[in-house]
Amino acid sequence: MFLNSRKWDPRGKSCYVTGGSQGLGLALSVLLAKKGANVTIVARDVKKMEEAVKLLEEHRQEPSQVFRYHSFSLNSADGAAAAVEAERAAAGGPSDAYFLCAGNSKPLYWLENTSEDLTAGMDQAYWVQAWTAHAASKLLVREKRTGKIVFISSTLALMSFVGYTSYSPGKHALKGLAETLRSELLLYGIDIHIFFAPTMLTPGYDEEMKTKPYITKKIEEDDSALTSEQAAAILFKGVAKGHHHISGNFITSLFRASSRGSAPSPNAFADFFLDNIAWIAIPIWRKLTDRSVIAHRDEHQKYLESKGLLG
Amino acid sequence: MFLNSRKWDPRGKSCYVTGGSQGLGLALSVLLAKKGANVTIVARDVKKMEEAVKLLEEHRQEPSQVFRYHSFSLNSADGAAAAVEAERAAAGGPSDAYFLCAGNSKPLYWLENTSEDLTAGMDQAYWVQAWTAHAASKLLVREKRTGKIVFISSTLALMSFVGYTSYSPGKHALKGLAETLRSELLLYGIDIHIFFAPTMLTPGYDEEMKTKPYITKKIEEDDSALTSEQAAAILFKGVAKGHHHISGNFITSLFRASSRGSAPSPNAFADFFLDNIAWIAIPIWRKLTDRSVIAHRDEHQKYLESKGLLG
Repeated sequence: MFLNSRKWDPRGKSCYVTGGSQGLGLALSVLLAKKGANVTIVARDVKKMEEAVKLLEEHRQEPSQVFRYHSFSLNSADGAAAAVEAERAAAGGPSDAYFLCAGNSKPLYWLENTSEDLTAGMDQAYWVQAWTAHAASKLLVREKRTGKIVFISSTLALMSFVGYTSYSPGKHALKGLAETLRSELLLYGIDIHIFFAPTMLTPGYDEEMKTKPYITKKIEEDDSALTSEQAAAILFKGVAKGHHHISGNFITSLFRASSRGSAPSPNAFADFFLDNIAWIAIPIWRKLTDRSVIAHRDEHQKYLESKGLLG
Repeated sequence: MFLNSRKWDPRGKSCYVTGGSQGLGLALSVLLAKKGANVTIVARDVKKMEEAVKLLEEHRQEPSQVFRYHSFSLNSADGAAAAVEAERAAAGGPSDAYFLCAGNSKPLYWLENTSEDLTAGMDQAYWVQAWTAHAASKLLVREKRTGKIVFISSTLALMSFVGYTSYSPGKHALKGLAETLRSELLLYGIDIHIFFAPTMLTPGYDEEMKTKPYITKKIEEDDSALTSEQAAAILFKGVAKGHHHISGNFITSLFRASSRGSAPSPNAFADFFLDNIAWIAIPIWRKLTDRSVIAHRDEHQKYLESKGLLG
């Protein structure tokens, strides 16, 4: 009891989960319901959200818990603001925590991306979360309420390699936004968290595998993946402990410890140790990866020709 | 001679410099002219570019050097592609090095930013460089040419704090793009460099001081600044040595060494040492900065009221 006294407890709190109809967002919504929170899911597909709310009902702990959903497109400032306002109107005030799980990725070679692909990549990796964070911050400050904003980023915010030109920049941008807001929202007592998710076995992952370049898949072939439920549990634990940077597995923690910026470490002693491992392990990984990319040159040239990208 | 044999020499090479009519871009253009390069400046203001080309003429080393300019708006894919194509047509082929110096910053409190401010911030910090990099990469690959792309980022790509929500995310995004491209463009032999600029005494700096929040100015009041010429010299030296990450001063190097991602260090031994200093110095800096932000709460509340941002 004493040791846990500073942990954040979602019981009776209202949690706003974007992208809550599937994948990490759904697993997190279920976890929050099990912990006694009120959960509001915000996504586009009404049918999926109806199913999701049914699932939340199965995990209800208290008769007083409220589960609901709003259907909005969140990749514009207006859509995100309208969704935050719809929930404010329904609940009679701001949410206690905003979990920003919406977003997806479409990996392609840099030369294959159209300008629309690159813009859509930034929308899905960054703006879909930034707009909700902006609307939620304004509402919390206006109503003189504290609260939490939780960004979902990726290992690819801490490093990057071939294939992720439309995704990694947006995930890096989220890290920069979270770090700025961690400092700036001290003005209002709003807490900022950011989860660096490793590969997760979600519908989004199945989707990105459809376009992922061959060499990217090859580099990732030995990666381990988390289920949505495992990732949600790690994310929740980090938020409850008040960590700003939260990483999903050992590899991501290595990159997090060696890409700290000015952000506080969840555990400075452990991270110092990880950072020392990173000094040795990451250059080796990079050299092997660079070698794979260079070895792929001839085959890639044929691919570009077959796609008419050299014309 | 032997020691320098692997250094990149711009003599006789064609260099494309966006934002070359003022500040860092102009200082870099002059430096490249002095080194015997052909220099093409791309910006909007024709009058400023005419002045800039006159200045380049004063530093001409060889009768064969060519200096010219193109007037384009670079913050759209089409504008950036048209500018790259105009130069290809004028020169009869791609440039050898693309230096992406265009861009600006308008610091405001997060709550003061309109959605247009945030979008324009990303355009100026990120897209204005990403679009040219995209067009240049496609051209180089199509013409089977190697070359260099040099991004201009900021210390604020490696850390961030209050006031930079419209700028730091875009500069982080550039770091992610550069890291992805360093890996991916090994497929084509195109080199990627990124300069993390500290505060520079440029027209852009004067402009950003006009909107910069009080607390941001206060946190920065002891920062040292580089002149454009000093920054251009550091940037050029890093590029000539083939460094991927290039930092402008000691403080930026501390953050670079502790935010390495998967990028190669310019000097792993020195950076290991800097990283150890960072483990001690940065948490102290952060605690002092957090304290300043929290101490500013009451005054900030009055500011928000005076601006009608709490209504």
